[in-house]
Amino acid sequence: MTRIRVATDSDVESIWPIFQEVVSPGDTYAYERETSKEDALRLWLQAPRCTYIVEEGGVVLGTYYIKTNQAGPGDHVCNCGYMVSSKARGKGLATLMCEHSQKIAIEMGYKAMQFNFVAASNEGAIRLWNRLGFDTVGRLPKSFNHPSKGYVDALVMFKWLE
Amino acid sequence: MTRIRVATDSDVESIWPIFQEVVSPGDTYAYERETSKEDALRLWLQAPRCTYIVEEGGVVLGTYYIKTNQAGPGDHVCNCGYMVSSKARGKGLATLMCEHSQKIAIEMGYKAMQFNFVAASNEGAIRLWNRLGFDTVGRLPKSFNHPSKGYVDALVMFKWLE
Repeated sequence: MTRIRVATDSDVESIWPIFQEVVSPGDTYAYERETSKEDALRLWLQAPRCTYIVEEGGVVLGTYYIKTNQAGPGDHVCNCGYMVSSKARGKGLATLMCEHSQKIAIEMGYKAMQFNFVAASNEGAIRLWNRLGFDTVGRLPKSFNHPSKGYVDALVMFKWLE
Repeated sequence: MTRIRVATDSDVESIWPIFQEVVSPGDTYAYERETSKEDALRLWLQAPRCTYIVEEGGVVLGTYYIKTNQAGPGDHVCNCGYMVSSKARGKGLATLMCEHSQKIAIEMGYKAMQFNFVAASNEGAIRLWNRLGFDTVGRLPKSFNHPSKGYVDALVMFKWLE
């Protein structure tokens, strides 16, 4: 049975292998490829407003965070990041988490969700966010330094939740 | 004589009145309108990679910060923020600081500069950034909650420095 719950600092041990396998190739997330476990704890679990994990039979298969994207006059728009374990790809977990996060965002009072930095080369993710109602509202020229493709554009994607 | 120098934590006393008068109207910056001096110190002087001040006869008239906009695969793009004292508006200080920051950015190894959240209602700033070579590369719908105009779009502006 799949269940989503709020993560605490102690979940860093189960999140860390997923974080590493997603971040170390350097082709999707705006984190250092050699981010330490301590920094991952801070970035993924402590800095965001809330972090969730998806479990199946006690095994963590995915995780996402939600945070306010800009303070003050921008604080009605949130930002999320999602990571799926390589063991669980293709099972719809990203969709499950993104839909869950939109519900949580509305409960938290946010009116919109923004992804700030989607590598244009990450076609699977872009297709998925499009399918889930996100529009491309910005294109940052050569802003993503891809490990094999070099400088590629990064997209800003956005969905109004109401 | 106008001079630009690196700011240290102790410059918070001269920066604070400028920060307050720029931030408290809530019509330009993505900070809480009631940001405390302690938070201003952290946000403007400590979190960025470097902060500069513009002085004239020992009086601080403007300030800007420079920081890396996205870590890892995005760390070749910087972000800056500029504030000018009400005593010194219309004297070209924003232009002076923006041009200085582009030079510093190149020295620091950055290849591009991005402004993430320019209120579409801030027409003076947009005209200035355009004149200084920045393009609008994104438009975030109703993302800026303006105190009198309500939800207005926010622009993402970008300049390749090489």
